[in-house]
Amino acid sequence: MISKQRIGLVGTGLMGQPVARRLAAAGYAVAVWNRSEHKARELEKYGVTIATSPARLVAETEVIICLLSDAEACNEVLFNESTLKAATQNSIIIMMSTLSPEIVIEQQEKASRKQLTYIDMPVSGGTHGAENGTLSLMAGGKIEHIDALRPLLSHLGKVTRVGEVGAGQLTKLANQIIVAGTLSLLSEAFTLAQKGGADPVQVREALLGGLADSTLLQQQGERMVEQDFTARGPAKWQLKDTRSTVALAQQLGLNLPVTETVNTLFSQMIEAGDGELDHCAIIRQIKRLNKLAI
Amino acid sequence: MISKQRIGLVGTGLMGQPVARRLAAAGYAVAVWNRSEHKARELEKYGVTIATSPARLVAETEVIICLLSDAEACNEVLFNESTLKAATQNSIIIMMSTLSPEIVIEQQEKASRKQLTYIDMPVSGGTHGAENGTLSLMAGGKIEHIDALRPLLSHLGKVTRVGEVGAGQLTKLANQIIVAGTLSLLSEAFTLAQKGGADPVQVREALLGGLADSTLLQQQGERMVEQDFTARGPAKWQLKDTRSTVALAQQLGLNLPVTETVNTLFSQMIEAGDGELDHCAIIRQIKRLNKLAI
Repeated sequence: MISKQRIGLVGTGLMGQPVARRLAAAGYAVAVWNRSEHKARELEKYGVTIATSPARLVAETEVIICLLSDAEACNEVLFNESTLKAATQNSIIIMMSTLSPEIVIEQQEKASRKQLTYIDMPVSGGTHGAENGTLSLMAGGKIEHIDALRPLLSHLGKVTRVGEVGAGQLTKLANQIIVAGTLSLLSEAFTLAQKGGADPVQVREALLGGLADSTLLQQQGERMVEQDFTARGPAKWQLKDTRSTVALAQQLGLNLPVTETVNTLFSQMIEAGDGELDHCAIIRQIKRLNKLAI
Repeated sequence: MISKQRIGLVGTGLMGQPVARRLAAAGYAVAVWNRSEHKARELEKYGVTIATSPARLVAETEVIICLLSDAEACNEVLFNESTLKAATQNSIIIMMSTLSPEIVIEQQEKASRKQLTYIDMPVSGGTHGAENGTLSLMAGGKIEHIDALRPLLSHLGKVTRVGEVGAGQLTKLANQIIVAGTLSLLSEAFTLAQKGGADPVQVREALLGGLADSTLLQQQGERMVEQDFTARGPAKWQLKDTRSTVALAQQLGLNLPVTETVNTLFSQMIEAGDGELDHCAIIRQIKRLNKLAI
């Protein structure tokens, strides 16, 4: 029997913590590195070891999972000459951060120059999905590389290969624009219903189970009609995604009218000062646009 | 024990047939009237009786369910002086057709002048929902009238009271704009993914179970990526709904940018000659807009 790969995880934030815990619980040797060490220390009681530097981490593991916050942090910690040089030969880097398709292709090139395999694998499902092993993992990379990782990834959720490196991030953007757009549609539908004299709480109830039903109607829709705008997913992050999508569409020469309209709405919402509210507070922007009480 | 109300149903089309059958099976005395009598005759083997005229139907029943195709047919058959005059006193008219909120308010006024109760109750869930008693019934009217009908309506599906007469139709429009808008968003997301090099079939697979999941992603989304555009819900009907929604929003002085964008897309789609295709063929309009192969 082949021994299990040693896992190195960089970034022990909200998502990194449960990912490290689940893999350790599944019997993998997991080492972590994090800029603020105290967050990494919390994992020691689960049998996770703490690496003293990113270079030591990549030197002592075969699979490196990256869950850093952005492209800048990735370059600083992992995609620099000295860290990559320290990596065990033929190691695999799994990029679980949400980045642009362009950036992951650049990272892949850097990794490949050091004979490292690179997989693009943003996730959806949040901390709840990470804790319960029900993440959706959107994988871009070679089939054989992704297939070889399936036993490991099965502890985290459902892996779907969507294409080559870059396609994972593209799928994440597709996910995000559907989310932002559906929230905008629900906002317009509830505003229309209310202005026309129907009760939005009951309208939502009536729509459940029908063709207009969605996870967003069930979850965010409820908070929307109850005006509970405590941020689970802040609107400012949603705007970051809709902006990236519009930028990518322009790069690809695509005209996506609904996406553009939704991006404009989120821009206006953040300009109006609602960026720290939950993304479902986009209903406030529809009301603001129509000079209705919010 | 109070005897069950006698039910009169006008319009024995795709929806009327299963509604009549289910109520007859539940032990109600059901009489029907239909312009083309042979459709009504099919119901005789289920114990349903055929009325010789709309006036006879309303004279011999206490609850009248209307499932005619449009406002014109409703006026011709039911909402005219002679038919309404023939109705049993204190009868209840349940309007299950999809009409505009304005029209149902007019009909209510006519009914009320003859001491008849009127409930606005469009349905969602299609023939499948009607056959299985899982329709969503969006009810506008007085609470006590709707509550009194619950034993009867429980054989057809889930009733939600959304407000006064007119609110039911408003909720149906809200349902339809969410449907048309979500299909447009899925179209843009899949087109972006494909143009960027991801496989739309796998992208859809990756999105299932995540925050972007919806009944439409599960059902129409599958047909969209497989390019199966056989009409279950023709695009021309979807346009009728998005147009009604935009017209109503204008009447209410509302600016709904996503709804307007979606309505424009469906108008262009029908102009391009795709009106007889399924509503999920809106993806062809996004591709056409971008000069991509369809």
